[in-house]
Amino acid sequence: MANTSNYKLSAAVGPLKYNDILPYKTQSVSTTNDFLQKLIEILLDFVRATNDRNEKILDFHHPEEMQKLLDLKIPDKGVSLQQLIHDCATTLKYQVKTGHARFFNQLSCGLDIISMAGEWLTATANTNMFTYEIAPVFILMENVVMTHMREIIGPNWVNGDSILAPGGSISNLYAFLAARHKMFPNYKEKGIATIQGQLVMFTSDQSHYSVKSCASICGLGTDNCLMVPSDIHGRMIPSELERLILDRKAKGHIPFFVCCTSGTTVLGAFDPINEIADICEKYGMWLHVDAAWGGGLLLSKKYRHPRLSGVERADSVTWNPHKLMGALLQCSTIHFKEDGLLMSCNQMSADYLFMQDKLYDIRYDTGDKVIQCGRHNDIFKLWLQWRAKGDEGFEKHMDHLMEMSEYMVKRIKDQPDKFYLIMEPEMVNVSFWYIPTRLRKMPHSATREKELGKMCPILKARMMQAGTLMVGYQPDDRRPNFFRNIISSAAVTQSDVDFLLAEMDRLGHDL
Amino acid sequence: MANTSNYKLSAAVGPLKYNDILPYKTQSVSTTNDFLQKLIEILLDFVRATNDRNEKILDFHHPEEMQKLLDLKIPDKGVSLQQLIHDCATTLKYQVKTGHARFFNQLSCGLDIISMAGEWLTATANTNMFTYEIAPVFILMENVVMTHMREIIGPNWVNGDSILAPGGSISNLYAFLAARHKMFPNYKEKGIATIQGQLVMFTSDQSHYSVKSCASICGLGTDNCLMVPSDIHGRMIPSELERLILDRKAKGHIPFFVCCTSGTTVLGAFDPINEIADICEKYGMWLHVDAAWGGGLLLSKKYRHPRLSGVERADSVTWNPHKLMGALLQCSTIHFKEDGLLMSCNQMSADYLFMQDKLYDIRYDTGDKVIQCGRHNDIFKLWLQWRAKGDEGFEKHMDHLMEMSEYMVKRIKDQPDKFYLIMEPEMVNVSFWYIPTRLRKMPHSATREKELGKMCPILKARMMQAGTLMVGYQPDDRRPNFFRNIISSAAVTQSDVDFLLAEMDRLGHDL
Repeated sequence: MANTSNYKLSAAVGPLKYNDILPYKTQSVSTTNDFLQKLIEILLDFVRATNDRNEKILDFHHPEEMQKLLDLKIPDKGVSLQQLIHDCATTLKYQVKTGHARFFNQLSCGLDIISMAGEWLTATANTNMFTYEIAPVFILMENVVMTHMREIIGPNWVNGDSILAPGGSISNLYAFLAARHKMFPNYKEKGIATIQGQLVMFTSDQSHYSVKSCASICGLGTDNCLMVPSDIHGRMIPSELERLILDRKAKGHIPFFVCCTSGTTVLGAFDPINEIADICEKYGMWLHVDAAWGGGLLLSKKYRHPRLSGVERADSVTWNPHKLMGALLQCSTIHFKEDGLLMSCNQMSADYLFMQDKLYDIRYDTGDKVIQCGRHNDIFKLWLQWRAKGDEGFEKHMDHLMEMSEYMVKRIKDQPDKFYLIMEPEMVNVSFWYIPTRLRKMPHSATREKELGKMCPILKARMMQAGTLMVGYQPDDRRPNFFRNIISSAAVTQSDVDFLLAEMDRLGHDL
Repeated sequence: MANTSNYKLSAAVGPLKYNDILPYKTQSVSTTNDFLQKLIEILLDFVRATNDRNEKILDFHHPEEMQKLLDLKIPDKGVSLQQLIHDCATTLKYQVKTGHARFFNQLSCGLDIISMAGEWLTATANTNMFTYEIAPVFILMENVVMTHMREIIGPNWVNGDSILAPGGSISNLYAFLAARHKMFPNYKEKGIATIQGQLVMFTSDQSHYSVKSCASICGLGTDNCLMVPSDIHGRMIPSELERLILDRKAKGHIPFFVCCTSGTTVLGAFDPINEIADICEKYGMWLHVDAAWGGGLLLSKKYRHPRLSGVERADSVTWNPHKLMGALLQCSTIHFKEDGLLMSCNQMSADYLFMQDKLYDIRYDTGDKVIQCGRHNDIFKLWLQWRAKGDEGFEKHMDHLMEMSEYMVKRIKDQPDKFYLIMEPEMVNVSFWYIPTRLRKMPHSATREKELGKMCPILKARMMQAGTLMVGYQPDDRRPNFFRNIISSAAVTQSDVDFLLAEMDRLGHDL
């Protein structure tokens, strides 16, 4: 990136302060624009650098060093506009470029320009999503996009209901609350006292920890969130689910909620929805599908089945466009097949906020059906992105990510001396070990896995210090540390995959 | 605002599509910049119009009409860059200008240019706040600003802990969860079964509904969130709190949590913290101060006391910079006097996400102490704004809002025939009735209040249809609909207050 000293405001504007521009000085439109245009220069340069493979992903410094490189202090008297411009440039200089084509580190990678443009507009509009009164266009967009997403889940979902939430964990919480409310409508007022017996919920041992967190938050206790064993691919074993349900029923407990994960965090596994739905129907339990990660594949005719087959049988679905679809952070959605539940579950009848005698049809207001009261506008960036891509563009986007992952698997298999593929992935999560020279002749065994696991943090540290590549690693229940590569950025090409593998070898061969 | 047809991309760029720009075409930097610069033109024009008192606040249309004015459809094939630019301009044309100086409608008004600039940068950086690994600068900023805010709450808070949450309701939920965890550490695993007796919480009948919502979410049931009566100013009556505690204790219940509101939503009232703290100490209960709304006044030497006197005695404090301080939506904070509670309460030991063997000091990672997992970056816009204003600038900002409110009260009192002041406000909430000509001679009585209440929705509708003014109204337990004016925008001047009162008279005198 350009040196931060390149960003100089004009001599007339630089020394000015916040109260020399809008809204303080009404005649300061051009000064305000000068300041904002200078910021835009910095942002455009960051966008350019993010998309330049010759630029580093990050310039790593330990927290103590980083603090010395930055001036983060809150001053008594405010700093000048020039200093703010300098602060912005410095911030981006040391920020990790999560949109860089060699950033394979998170479930959310990439920098979608259209979605980013949407978020700039969202910031400028700076409104709250609780009423049509102050967010008319955005509320209508939310209706259009949420209906479209429900149509994609299944034709029987069109008349359901949806809401955007601040992240998949809160979306899952919404599903839990709606399920409890549907089955025990008095719970809202009376609480636990309304039920004879312990509520129990079920999720796979590979599921996102937010499901277990629901049990903690909502008073069940994590001991009553049962972790159903998964098979070797990371998919919930339906017979184990049924066994655990019967076990708890025998104790007089009340199994009421099953979370089926479509795209697990580490392995990208898809629980078998149809088999789990059969069990939920048999025992009268709520079926929630946590497709926060895998939901994007609903947009692909080629990859939707068999992974998400049966999703239309669920009662609720979490689906995060900020993951596979590349919408800017945050953009998470929760969908319900049944309309009216969100409102009856969450409404606190705050008539002092959500008046019933308004100018317009108050069914468009959303404030009373959410647990946050005010909500950030997370819809515009997604709507604009979907307008840009269309359904067809999003399908191509999903297919591209899957094809790049397939290419990576192929390239790993082509080099069995250097890489060990842990399993054939169902999604864009590719799990593998890199094998340094000294371990290449060793037969694969638990001993070698342990050695390979020890390499992961060291190789990751080398990547970050080189600044050329970022790939995540973690242990799981079956094995020590291993790399989990994620291709969720539309920027990734075959040559980036080739680079990734070559760079790991360059940085790690001598380990 | 300028006509949307003014925003034409060049003939070469306009027909292009999303996949003709970055990251799809690596050689398309200048085309990408052209598109983004055109968007910036639109945004700058919206900023200009927001700050121009000759521009309308909104162009109101009912939902059905609005749908006809907009093309919101998700297409099969994506639209052109030119169409996206048109979409952006149209969106803003029909959006309410919440930063307009005559928008007095919400607790969050105003458009702080520096905070907006910060949010543009945040969008461009597009990262997640869960680890230092991918948000190094932002994590350090969060530490600096949160520590500074705790210092302002009280010197004994410096070694506490804080987190930014998606809105005050979730911040209040964090407080509830920490309180329950502190008193009943087994609750996390065992749930309700760990406790002999019904948990009970208390909040004033004027408090935000999210407090009651906690009781619903967390399994107490809203019947066990007791609404403590308030005095005529809307302040919790401490003797009533104690009476209700003793009443529930007599039933064998376990009172454990009191929410004390600093700045109620409607009246802007401040519960007496010191007296409530005495009661909490006497009965061993957690004291939470919900200063989501009033917290900004902590920054003013003149207005902090007596309103927030005793806040340092609380166990937790919610404080939303996106309200009185004008940070862009959303920016909410929750602070704890005791360090470590957030982590022990919310940690689900997701070692697969938050590895313990990293390159850097993992105490800087925040992911494991929150309930959302991923978090939007809500700190940069606040940090940049605070750098710009300094403590001194924020103090002036708070004092200005209070002085404008005092001016409004004075102007209302100057015109007793046209306006009826309901009470002397403690904050920037000014509660009043507008009196149309035909009711000016009528002595004030319950009958007149009822008539005045009926006028509110009609006058509000006229404001929205004229597009010149927006002021909120609502009923409360003691009276029918009345206007609640909010001055939380730094743009408001005495002449805006004069305009507000004159415009209400112009629009409503014949009602």
